[in-house]
Amino acid sequence: MAGGADSEVAKPEFSRQFQEDFETLLKWRRDVRRFRTDPLPTGSLEHLLHLADLAPSVGNSQPWRIVIVEDPDSRAQVTASFEAENEQAAKHYENDKAQMYRQLKLAGLKEAPVHLAIFSDDDPEQGHGLGRATMHETLAYSTVSMIHTFWLAARAEGIGVGWVSILDPEKVTDALQVDASWRLVAYLCVGFPEEEHMDPELERTRWQARSPLETRLFRR
Amino acid sequence: MAGGADSEVAKPEFSRQFQEDFETLLKWRRDVRRFRTDPLPTGSLEHLLHLADLAPSVGNSQPWRIVIVEDPDSRAQVTASFEAENEQAAKHYENDKAQMYRQLKLAGLKEAPVHLAIFSDDDPEQGHGLGRATMHETLAYSTVSMIHTFWLAARAEGIGVGWVSILDPEKVTDALQVDASWRLVAYLCVGFPEEEHMDPELERTRWQARSPLETRLFRR
Repeated sequence: MAGGADSEVAKPEFSRQFQEDFETLLKWRRDVRRFRTDPLPTGSLEHLLHLADLAPSVGNSQPWRIVIVEDPDSRAQVTASFEAENEQAAKHYENDKAQMYRQLKLAGLKEAPVHLAIFSDDDPEQGHGLGRATMHETLAYSTVSMIHTFWLAARAEGIGVGWVSILDPEKVTDALQVDASWRLVAYLCVGFPEEEHMDPELERTRWQARSPLETRLFRR
Repeated sequence: MAGGADSEVAKPEFSRQFQEDFETLLKWRRDVRRFRTDPLPTGSLEHLLHLADLAPSVGNSQPWRIVIVEDPDSRAQVTASFEAENEQAAKHYENDKAQMYRQLKLAGLKEAPVHLAIFSDDDPEQGHGLGRATMHETLAYSTVSMIHTFWLAARAEGIGVGWVSILDPEKVTDALQVDASWRLVAYLCVGFPEEEHMDPELERTRWQARSPLETRLFRR
């Protein structure tokens, strides 16, 4: 597409139907932890990654670094880190909450056919530093926008995504042997969901319900 | 909606048309810095905030804290911080790049009818700490998902959003007198765009073009 003033064009109009379906997509997105083991259709992952790559980024820096984790040994190291950290986390709860925590299924690492480790480059050349001098963390935030775009695009094709954060970032970084300037932002499990739910698993299992927006809204 | 096993339901099917329109939305999102000054339609901001509130969050903690900034004095303090930091940033570039930087329009603070300061609570009770022991920054990342959801939902209604990061977070936090445990994640300008473009302003002005996805994609 050509640059310059010529690039101003008529905007697309999104229909009422699209807006309603988009709302349905947001309501149905879900953090999936129960996956079928069958692979994604050919070309599907590549298509979703190209859509995710359209995400906003500070200074147009596109700092996300996407690692498709296929090696069984690397996957096993990540799974072992999850199990160790999850056991540690369980010890921080007491009584009913401890029992409830141990019953939660918090990752689908063993079943999901696709594993993605998403890193953020903490000092990318691209972007020439624009916009991040005062808030350096906008680089990692850009990478989160990419992850969230991927998540929604996947769900629109019936594919589930689960974000695993109960991991030792150093162990994952070591296991995957990536550049030392990359910071782990998320480890994603991707595949077709085994079940379909409209309510979050943590709400369904009575760990934590959502609360009204009004409690998070302020005026100044 | 009831919890328990009953909550499993038939999933929605998203049409090919929806998927294509969603791709158009991603391509058209834009970081808007040139706004019309007319207000949003009544109820529009509230509707968009309710959609954004459907975003994923670690442990279902919903850590975002949204401040609608209406007070002219508060807005003026934020604008002054942008101008000071933008001037500082310009000094880091030399020759052509310095001249180019000064010609960029990096915020629409004076024109945009709606200003939102988005903070993240660094220690919310909600979520009972689940999922964030190993990667505390997942709280701020959850807040970014909320911002990105708002951004897409707004664009689907023809409303533009610009993320201003060239700010001193402490000055903004002080100006708005919010809780000390809140961390500024983004300051958003919201309103109808004055121009419509499909390519990023930073690409159009030849500051920084996007690069091929393949340079960000790795296999292990």
